[in-house]
Amino acid sequence: MPPLRIDPIAEARRHWTARWGEEPARPMAAVTSIMRAQQVLMARLNDLLRPHGLTFPRYEALMLLSFTRTGALPLGKIGERLQVHRTSVTNIVDKLETDGLVRRVPHENDRRATLAEITDAGRDAAQRATAALNEAAFGIDALEKDEQEAVTTLMRALRVDAGDFAGRD
Amino acid sequence: MPPLRIDPIAEARRHWTARWGEEPARPMAAVTSIMRAQQVLMARLNDLLRPHGLTFPRYEALMLLSFTRTGALPLGKIGERLQVHRTSVTNIVDKLETDGLVRRVPHENDRRATLAEITDAGRDAAQRATAALNEAAFGIDALEKDEQEAVTTLMRALRVDAGDFAGRD
Repeated sequence: MPPLRIDPIAEARRHWTARWGEEPARPMAAVTSIMRAQQVLMARLNDLLRPHGLTFPRYEALMLLSFTRTGALPLGKIGERLQVHRTSVTNIVDKLETDGLVRRVPHENDRRATLAEITDAGRDAAQRATAALNEAAFGIDALEKDEQEAVTTLMRALRVDAGDFAGRD
Repeated sequence: MPPLRIDPIAEARRHWTARWGEEPARPMAAVTSIMRAQQVLMARLNDLLRPHGLTFPRYEALMLLSFTRTGALPLGKIGERLQVHRTSVTNIVDKLETDGLVRRVPHENDRRATLAEITDAGRDAAQRATAALNEAAFGIDALEKDEQEAVTTLMRALRVDAGDFAGRD
């Protein structure tokens, strides 16, 4: 989409400040900024991944599998780790399977559970996609190193507060 | 979903650093942190909005309309401002219309265009929902005031770089 002429968040903040004051205007601007940054980053990552036949959610699932010892995880575990709903995991794994990047295998000990296992083609795709994302600094090279660290730290505080993970890691 | 035991981003960053070094690991962690923070915030905002019969995208559309002089905008303009695709705008406006919060009206000068116009019930719902979100500091009260400002500033740099808006505002 073409860029907007004005910053919609700055404009919303002016409206907010005029009607409800500085205090709610500040967190409104911060939260809306995260929402919008996520949208533009997701579009950028998907553009970088398209030549590799992947979207960011599918790429995340492949990387998750590639980091496991056996290259396989139950579908439920994938959903938990990526914080996506069951139906989204099914869609992601379906598409990866159609493309030959994962295969479904039965769970050894739990016959109700299905594992997704990364294939050699999946490892190749993940490797190539990672090279492209690393090369592009994940689309975030507008920020300096210390700014990138600040983002991680600020988002971590938010994530802990929202119960994204329990540890003190 | 229950909280994870470990921070999945810290874990991914360890894997990344081991395989590809510090440099791509830093931006990977920052970008993935924004993605995940967006997920947990969206869930939190939707929880806050559910008692008011709204989701965050529908709430954003209502607020956008409420800030206009006439209370109405063409659907295409709503999509542009919210950076969502045509089909998503249609879905959002369909649901708002079903709930009596907006109505579709023909454009005065362009017969191919349709406007969404906020109703009195829509203004009431927006008002009540805003009170709830303001009260909860948009779910971001884990961050101090200066941290909230830092988020807005950092995300703004990202958004400008990604062409979210063109102005120097």
